Amino acid sequence: MPLTDTQKRLVRENKSDFSDLKTVFINCTLKASNQGQSHTETLMRDSMEIMEKCGVAVDYIRAADHQVAFGVQPDMREHGAKTDDWPEHIWPKVRDSQILVLGSPIWLGEESSICRVIIERLYAHSAQVNDKDQYIFYGKTGGCIVTGNEDGIKAVSNTVLYSLQHIGYTIPPQADCGWIGEAGPGPSYGDEMDDGSRAGFDNDFTHRNLTFMTFNLMHIARMLKDAGGIPAHGNQKSQ
Amino acid sequence: MPLTDTQKRLVRENKSDFSDLKTVFINCTLKASNQGQSHTETLMRDSMEIMEKCGVAVDYIRAADHQVAFGVQPDMREHGAKTDDWPEHIWPKVRDSQILVLGSPIWLGEESSICRVIIERLYAHSAQVNDKDQYIFYGKTGGCIVTGNEDGIKAVSNTVLYSLQHIGYTIPPQADCGWIGEAGPGPSYGDEMDDGSRAGFDNDFTHRNLTFMTFNLMHIARMLKDAGGIPAHGNQKSQ
Amino acid sequence: MPLTDTQKRLVRENKSDFSDLKTVFINCTLKASNQGQSHTETLMRDSMEIMEKCGVAVDYIRAADHQVAFGVQPDMREHGAKTDDWPEHIWPKVRDSQILVLGSPIWLGEESSICRVIIERLYAHSAQVNDKDQYIFYGKTGGCIVTGNEDGIKAVSNTVLYSLQHIGYTIPPQADCGWIGEAGPGPSYGDEMDDGSRAGFDNDFTHRNLTFMTFNLMHIARMLKDAGGIPAHGNQKSQ
Amino acid sequence: MPLTDTQKRLVRENKSDFSDLKTVFINCTLKASNQGQSHTETLMRDSMEIMEKCGVAVDYIRAADHQVAFGVQPDMREHGAKTDDWPEHIWPKVRDSQILVLGSPIWLGEESSICRVIIERLYAHSAQVNDKDQYIFYGKTGGCIVTGNEDGIKAVSNTVLYSLQHIGYTIPPQADCGWIGEAGPGPSYGDEMDDGSRAGFDNDFTHRNLTFMTFNLMHIARMLKDAGGIPAHGNQKSQ
Repeated sequence: MPLTDTQKRLVRENKSDFSDLKTVFINCTLKASNQGQSHTETLMRDSMEIMEKCGVAVDYIRAADHQVAFGVQPDMREHGAKTDDWPEHIWPKVRDSQILVLGSPIWLGEESSICRVIIERLYAHSAQVNDKDQYIFYGKTGGCIVTGNEDGIKAVSNTVLYSLQHIGYTIPPQADCGWIGEAGPGPSYGDEMDDGSRAGFDNDFTHRNLTFMTFNLMHIARMLKDAGGIPAHGNQKSQ
Repeated sequence: MPLTDTQKRLVRENKSDFSDLKTVFINCTLKASNQGQSHTETLMRDSMEIMEKCGVAVDYIRAADHQVAFGVQPDMREHGAKTDDWPEHIWPKVRDSQILVLGSPIWLGEESSICRVIIERLYAHSAQVNDKDQYIFYGKTGGCIVTGNEDGIKAVSNTVLYSLQHIGYTIPPQADCGWIGEAGPGPSYGDEMDDGSRAGFDNDFTHRNLTFMTFNLMHIARMLKDAGGIPAHGNQKSQ
Repeated sequence: MPLTDTQKRLVRENKSDFSDLKTVFINCTLKASNQGQSHTETLMRDSMEIMEKCGVAVDYIRAADHQVAFGVQPDMREHGAKTDDWPEHIWPKVRDSQILVLGSPIWLGEESSICRVIIERLYAHSAQVNDKDQYIFYGKTGGCIVTGNEDGIKAVSNTVLYSLQHIGYTIPPQADCGWIGEAGPGPSYGDEMDDGSRAGFDNDFTHRNLTFMTFNLMHIARMLKDAGGIPAHGNQKSQ
Repeated sequence: MPLTDTQKRLVRENKSDFSDLKTVFINCTLKASNQGQSHTETLMRDSMEIMEKCGVAVDYIRAADHQVAFGVQPDMREHGAKTDDWPEHIWPKVRDSQILVLGSPIWLGEESSICRVIIERLYAHSAQVNDKDQYIFYGKTGGCIVTGNEDGIKAVSNTVLYSLQHIGYTIPPQADCGWIGEAGPGPSYGDEMDDGSRAGFDNDFTHRNLTFMTFNLMHIARMLKDAGGIPAHGNQKSQ
């Protein structure tokens, strides 16, 4: 949706220089682009727009549009998979970005299967190190955007944020946001309602959490980049 | 709330004899009775009323009104606790009931601390056996009722139902129900709204799930009692 | 591994007639057969052998050997997927079996992405009903087998068993089993060790839980089949 | 246990000045001091010793030794509780510390009930702000130590770390550690074994994770304190 007035003002009044930062947003909807609109994307676009207007270079990947192989190795073509879009189309963007945001729909209260594919493939790189002999994800920061029609934002964020910190990401305060409706089936985020309004667009809580998450990701990424990452003592692989 | 027309009809048309069954409902709200109304109780009462009108003997315990000690032994007074209401006030009702329903509010997306106390105390009895040398909870059936104002019905039910089956309960289909509102803070179940209505009372999904859970608990309890519990082969402790 | 002496005796002394029951085991390892051995399969085979020797007709599916489309519809070829092995190769076996056992490895403490694919595809059928107007999974019973090298049996079982009961399966007591090693990386189930033994094969706890799970699944399936499923009152879809 | 040689060396070679930092470790064992030794404490003491030797001022609280009331308000004595040790004995240490580490045992795969009590009481302060109008926990960093005899380190850490970041803590990379044994009952961390060794003391993985967690907590706390906390833009409460 269009940025709220508060979001517009915060972007306008932002004085930090984020212009050397890169972010990749990976949408883990089960639907490829030819299978319909993604409600999760609708919400992710708000965070992307705030970052872009603050100078961050933003990439967006809809995972279902790619052939990402199952497995826990960096390139599954070397392990029996016929095709694998991960090593050339997705991994380089993750590797080169200071910020990663995973978006996921909720199915049976949990993240999508494609979200787990992405987590497994990130994990596949956990044996690699940066030039300070730390896990390769050290110095990066991550967050999570979740949509569903009934229940499970926290359960999904739990899993996603835990996985990211486990492989080396730093998690800023309040690094998740999402939208669900009242208990039970109902409209998904952004669906047009009978009165012409769109589901969730007037939810101040969702907008506020998205705003907090987005700025906190940029602040922590700024701080980590300025510090040259996390000091390399007590956290190096060969020790 | 008063039973819905469908619930009233289902009670009226029920032909099964459930009059020899006992159920205990344990409400795990953090508030003792002198600390205010429990929204979880408001929803639990609907399931209790359906069971009572179908002939089941129903007990209700508000755990926060008792001094239940922390620990994983059947009587914590024998292990250093000054007081412990569990062995005399709560355990006998659980032991003698064919059905157990735990009710919990949601805090930070999870069950309440008191709900975990109850789970830990149930687990304390997992070394005991019935007269067929099976864990003492074999032949019993369990369910779960959850309320909150934003998110987490499934996450709480996940944990509660897993714990119950782990110690020996049989879990019927769709053995949980609950109510939450749209993402973000807001009214709790049963709160009076500006228009005089009460939050969640018109939620067909919640009523339906509560109804399914309630009848499935009675059906499975009936089936298990008629069969004399679960056949004792391949599941006896001494083996 | 070969059945233990206790398992052999329990099979020999079994007096229940399970010969009209069908079970499908779905292994959710990330590896297709051409990508190596599945440690999860090694453990699943024990449960399969017990069931077979008790007369149950057992099917085994290694999900990674099939092209199962992402999505939440019964046949994703009608929704934009090029191929989808689910509707013809997997679903009929699930539909016709009284028992379903999902096997999953653990990755980052959770079930595999392929396990979530299977759960999503099962969920896709939750709008269908049986001839008593109940959800199509009513009257079936389900369990879960988990292996990993460090941590997460209960977390995976939590999710799998919750999902199964949510769509209509009945969960027997102690319906999960698994093996993990001590905290940290290490051998996986069945790996050959330096001393020629195989990891986990001497773990009495794992064997016992597998045995309990397997017999309880057969007992509950027997009970449900003899009763003609779960009585149809208070749990029918059109109500 | 005594620090490992690697840990001793890392402490000796540490060049960062952490002498203005405070940490509080809260042990959420179910046992009060008069009820026996805490295995979780045994592991926590390693992290405490590293921090102390690096100059950090360390406080240790065994929650079960205090009367902490149930509830989600800063002082439950104002809401009907007879006693409440939280506001005077625990909260001031949390408020004044840059680092918080929660330790928990595992029961049925989840954190202890007392751990949930502490999380609920932390959450009770989430309406308070710091002098930059951010949530009061902004600028602090948190971690988690878990012990059990079978399974659940990640499940517990999931919940604890999610809760901490949700209320404002920053989570460093690899901010959890723990020890469990092979699947099934068995010794707890530090238990003396038949051969005179102590369970888990030779587990390199546990020591390494504890070391990484401990240093990462100090590094991020250092970075946040030097920066005067998290920049106050886009994350202030009144907006």
